[in-house]
Amino acid sequence: MRDFLPADKARRERVLAVIRERYRAHGFDEIETPVMEDYDRLHAGIGGDNEKLSFSILKRGMDADGIRAAADDPAALADLGLRYDLTVPLARFYATNRAQLPTVFRSIQIAPVWRAERPQKGRYRQFVQCDIDIIGDASARAEAELMTASLDVLDALGLEGGSIRVNDRRVLDAMLDVFGFVPEERPGVLITIDKLDKIGASGVVAELRDRGAGATAVDAFAEYLDRPATTPRFDDDGIREALPAGIPDEVIAHLVALGETVAAVRGADAPLVFDPFLVRGMGYYTGTIFELAHPTVDYSLGGGGRYDGMIGRFLGQQVPAVGFSIGFERIVDLLQDAAGSDDRAVVLVHDRDVPLAQLLRLKAGLVADGVRVRLEQRPKNLKALLERSAADGYTSFATVRTDTDAASLELKPLA
Amino acid sequence: MRDFLPADKARRERVLAVIRERYRAHGFDEIETPVMEDYDRLHAGIGGDNEKLSFSILKRGMDADGIRAAADDPAALADLGLRYDLTVPLARFYATNRAQLPTVFRSIQIAPVWRAERPQKGRYRQFVQCDIDIIGDASARAEAELMTASLDVLDALGLEGGSIRVNDRRVLDAMLDVFGFVPEERPGVLITIDKLDKIGASGVVAELRDRGAGATAVDAFAEYLDRPATTPRFDDDGIREALPAGIPDEVIAHLVALGETVAAVRGADAPLVFDPFLVRGMGYYTGTIFELAHPTVDYSLGGGGRYDGMIGRFLGQQVPAVGFSIGFERIVDLLQDAAGSDDRAVVLVHDRDVPLAQLLRLKAGLVADGVRVRLEQRPKNLKALLERSAADGYTSFATVRTDTDAASLELKPLA
Repeated sequence: MRDFLPADKARRERVLAVIRERYRAHGFDEIETPVMEDYDRLHAGIGGDNEKLSFSILKRGMDADGIRAAADDPAALADLGLRYDLTVPLARFYATNRAQLPTVFRSIQIAPVWRAERPQKGRYRQFVQCDIDIIGDASARAEAELMTASLDVLDALGLEGGSIRVNDRRVLDAMLDVFGFVPEERPGVLITIDKLDKIGASGVVAELRDRGAGATAVDAFAEYLDRPATTPRFDDDGIREALPAGIPDEVIAHLVALGETVAAVRGADAPLVFDPFLVRGMGYYTGTIFELAHPTVDYSLGGGGRYDGMIGRFLGQQVPAVGFSIGFERIVDLLQDAAGSDDRAVVLVHDRDVPLAQLLRLKAGLVADGVRVRLEQRPKNLKALLERSAADGYTSFATVRTDTDAASLELKPLA
Repeated sequence: MRDFLPADKARRERVLAVIRERYRAHGFDEIETPVMEDYDRLHAGIGGDNEKLSFSILKRGMDADGIRAAADDPAALADLGLRYDLTVPLARFYATNRAQLPTVFRSIQIAPVWRAERPQKGRYRQFVQCDIDIIGDASARAEAELMTASLDVLDALGLEGGSIRVNDRRVLDAMLDVFGFVPEERPGVLITIDKLDKIGASGVVAELRDRGAGATAVDAFAEYLDRPATTPRFDDDGIREALPAGIPDEVIAHLVALGETVAAVRGADAPLVFDPFLVRGMGYYTGTIFELAHPTVDYSLGGGGRYDGMIGRFLGQQVPAVGFSIGFERIVDLLQDAAGSDDRAVVLVHDRDVPLAQLLRLKAGLVADGVRVRLEQRPKNLKALLERSAADGYTSFATVRTDTDAASLELKPLA
C-alpha cells in the first residue's frame, strides 16, 4: 500500500481525467459501488485465485463464545470483505439496479481494489482498476466499442500506436477438441498454452507431455504449433488460415465482424492482431478475449473479454456482458516523466511583517484571475525555496513587502 | 452503503472537480493515503467515538489456536482497519513523508471513510470526506487561507452567501475558568454548552445543575447567558464585548487578525461570525474552531479547527496544524437538482441491419468532433428510448439507416 505525494497524485488525477473524459465521450457512464461486498458473494467461486487474496472485515460485536466457535470455521468471523476486482461488484450492481439502467448498459468504473499479496516489486495490496463493460449486447458491436474507445484513450494519453491481440475462448475450446484433448484435461492444457510467450513451442509441448496429456492430441498440437509463424490478417481468410479445420463458423464470423469494424474506425494500420494462443486466466470468460499492447512495452496495458454467464449468477437470468480493464497503474508508470505544470502558478514570497489582510487580498486577486497561488514566508535560503517551487509545478514568483499591492506586484519566471 | 447510478455519480464527480480545482487554485496539493491503516494507530485514542465505529480487517492466515486465543482479546483478530476519518491518516502521512513536503504543507484529501453506523436516514457506512489542512503554520494566515478557499468553493458551486461561525477552544477554557468551573467538570460542561442551539439557555443551565456542576459557577454562567443576544462585530471591541473579562489577549488577537484578514478578502459582508458557545466535538482541537453555514440550510456545511498537538503524537515533535472538512455529502444533496447535461451529446438510433463498421465510423467521427455518443438499436418503443436518453443528459438524436453517412446524418433535438 502506498502514500501518494502531491506530484504523484496530480499525475494520477490527470491520467484519470483523460480516461474518464474519453470513455464518457464514447457513451459510457460512470458508476460507483461500495468497497465492501458481502463475504459470501466475494467467495462464490467467480473470482478465481483472487478470492483467496481478499481482505475480510471482522464482524462487529462478536463475543468470546462466538470467536471460540469460529476456530473451526474462520469464515464465521467475517460478514463483509474488500472487493478484489470490479467485475463481481458490477454483476451485483447490475442485478440490484437493472430497472433503472438502459437496456444496453455501458459502465465505467474507476476505483481501488485490494488483494493480500506478499509484498514485492510491482505488486500492490491496494491499486486502482479502471474497467469499462457493456451489459446487454451479444453482438460484436460491444467488443468494437470497448476496443475503439480504449485505443482512443491511449491516443489521448499520448500513447499512439496501441494494438489489440484478440482470440475467443470458443476457438480454444474447439481447437483442443479438434486435436483430441479430452474435456477433463483441457483446463490444464490451457494453463500450459498460456505460457507460450515465455517458454516457446518446444517448452509447451514438453510441459504437455509432462502433464500426461493424451499423446495423440499432443502430437497433433505440436504439428500445428510447428507451422511457420505468421501474423495472420484479421479477416475471414486470415483467421481460417491460422486455425485448424473444425472451428464453428459463427465464432469466426464474430471475430471477422469485429476486425472489419475496428479497421473501419482505426484505418489501415490494423490495430487488431489475431492470436489463437491467447488464453487469459479468468475462468469466467465465455467468448472473445483480448489484450491491449503498445510497442514501447513488452507487457499488456489492459485486457478483457466476454463473460456471458456471470450476470446470470446474480440476476437469475442470462444477460450477455463483455468488459475491458485498462491497466491504470501500468499506464501511470509509463507516463512517469510526463509531469506537466499548471499554466499559471505563482509563489508569493512575503516578508514576515506583511499584514495578513494585504497578503490574502493579493492572493485572492490572482486566484480570481485564474492563477494558482502558494504563499511562502521568505526563508533564509530563498534559492532552495524557488527550486522546490519549480519542482512542485509553479511557474513564477513575486516578492511581497509591506508596500506591495496588486499594481506593483512583479512576477518573475521560476528557473 | 450505497450504489451510485450514472446520474448520481456524474453529479458527485462534477462537485468534486469544482472542489479540487478551487482548492488547488488556492495553493493546496492533493495527496492520497491507503484506506487501511494499522489497527493500533486507529485505536490510539485520537479518533474519539469514531474509533469504536471503525471496521477492522481480519488477520490473514489465522489458525484455530490463534482464533481461540483471541476469544479474550478480540483485538488480536485484526491487524489493520478502515480509516474512520482523514485526520489520523494525514498525521501518519505527514510523519512518514515530511522530508519530501514543503515547510508549510497545504493538503487536500478527497476520499471515502467508513464507520459501522446503525443504518438510519442520512447516516452512511461509507461516505466521502473532503479535507484541507495546513501543517506547519501557527499564524492566523493558515485559518484565513482555509476559510477564504472554502468560501470560494461554495461560490464556485453556486452557493454564494456562505458564512463561518468561529470560536477558539482557549476562549471556552478561559471562560469556564473565569466562571469557576473546576477542571474535572469542564468536559461535561462543554458537552452541555454544545446543546445551546437545541435546548436554549434555560435548558443548558438546567442540565448543568442536573450534572451537579458547581452552583456558583453555574450561577455566574447563567448570568452571562442572560445578556441580550447580539451578533457581535468580528473585531477587537466586538469580541471583547461578547466575552467575560479574563480571556487571554493573545487568543483575542489571533481571532481579530483572522477576522480582519477574511473581511479584507471577502468584503464588507462580514462572512465571519464570532460565536463564543461554538464547541465542536473532537477532543483534539487546541485553538480556533469553526463551522461553515449557509442561509438556505439549518445545518453546517463543514467545520474544522486547530489541532496543534496531534502531529506530535506521530512525529515525536510538535508541529502546528489546522484543518477544515467541507461537508461533501451534504453539499451534493443540496445540489440535487443541479443535474446538468453535456453540451453536445447524441444518441444514434440505428436499424438492426446497419453494418457495424458503418455504425462505429459514424460514432468515431462525432466523438472526434467533441460530441458524446451513445449507440442504440431502434426499439419498438422509440418514444420511451428518447425520453430516457434525454433524462440521461443526451441533447439530440439521429436515425442511422444502411445508407446514412456522416454527410446525411441529421441531428434532431431531444425534447
